[in-house]
Amino acid sequence: MNYPNGKPFYGNKSQVGRTHKEEKGKINYGGRGMSLENDIELSNTHYLKLGQAVIHKKPTPVQIVNVHYPMRSKAVINEAYFRTPSTTDYNGIYNGHYLDFEAKETKNKTSFPLNNMHEHQVLHMDACFEQGGTVFLLIRFKLIDEVYLLPYSKFKYYWHRFKKEIKKSITVEEIRKNGYYIPYQYQPRLNYLKAVDKLILDESEDRV
Amino acid sequence: MNYPNGKPFYGNKSQVGRTHKEEKGKINYGGRGMSLENDIELSNTHYLKLGQAVIHKKPTPVQIVNVHYPMRSKAVINEAYFRTPSTTDYNGIYNGHYLDFEAKETKNKTSFPLNNMHEHQVLHMDACFEQGGTVFLLIRFKLIDEVYLLPYSKFKYYWHRFKKEIKKSITVEEIRKNGYYIPYQYQPRLNYLKAVDKLILDESEDRV
Repeated sequence: MNYPNGKPFYGNKSQVGRTHKEEKGKINYGGRGMSLENDIELSNTHYLKLGQAVIHKKPTPVQIVNVHYPMRSKAVINEAYFRTPSTTDYNGIYNGHYLDFEAKETKNKTSFPLNNMHEHQVLHMDACFEQGGTVFLLIRFKLIDEVYLLPYSKFKYYWHRFKKEIKKSITVEEIRKNGYYIPYQYQPRLNYLKAVDKLILDESEDRV
Repeated sequence: MNYPNGKPFYGNKSQVGRTHKEEKGKINYGGRGMSLENDIELSNTHYLKLGQAVIHKKPTPVQIVNVHYPMRSKAVINEAYFRTPSTTDYNGIYNGHYLDFEAKETKNKTSFPLNNMHEHQVLHMDACFEQGGTVFLLIRFKLIDEVYLLPYSKFKYYWHRFKKEIKKSITVEEIRKNGYYIPYQYQPRLNYLKAVDKLILDESEDRV
């Protein structure tokens, strides 16, 4: 059991709840201002509604130590700790394909820093890929507001380069070359399954 | 956002943590005394190690309301609530197949009571099945210590029967007839992928 070391908890807004109201008041102009996580959640809801895919974000893993039952209506967890996730955040099924992916945002304009990724998450992605899964990263460059799908099969090379201490990040150019650009559109705003379609097609050709 | 109504928290022992030590002291004779959840966890670890499948239990969904940072080393969640899960507990990939299932134990000797299942979990199973997933229930009859895999495609009928208020449960005989018995063995003790193999074979014949 590991605990993140003193890192404040920012992620997973959808589960923190109390931030919801403030966010609802905001008006979104194009792709700006919305977090990648929010966009993915909206897309997943859309896909589910239309029967196109069943993809969910996994709950934040929490080590529950103490639960209090002050009244009949609500159990209160009053001591719990964050655990390090052992998998990626998202998985599900799309037209018979197992999908598994991690979503990351960076404020960096020119590259995606690889210290953003946990070793065990990469091991998980590798295991899923070996089982025949469709595995990838969704990376959003916040400041230029561009989102890319980077297949695990391509990511692998950069991860090895990182582990060998050759280069700490993947450049935007490398991502543009090896990934799929996901343009914002009307509904769903981030139609990442379109990029997944291309990936599935490309990988089926590679695997044959 | 829903909260379970005053239900005490028993499940998900692997995440409660502090019960671990006590459990380690126990010696297991055959299949007895081990929870279904524990058995599945051991099987999943075994499958992962051998590169046979990547299947994980989803973390308990928790609504985090307040986090305290008393010192640098550990963030403490001091107010959180249980949320109703919107999916099943387990999913993953096995040799290219998307697996999705729920595990349930019952003390009932002769039937599996269907009030054990949440409506939204069944809807989730249905959606995954429609996408081509391999979807099922693992049911353990605690007192006779027998475990069965019941395919969602068969479960569906009994769920409708339940919703129409015709019958509140599935009898052991019905489960024996429509499901796959999973005998305890040496390693992993609960080799449920053997039953999954049969299910995949049977369903591929049905779907053709």
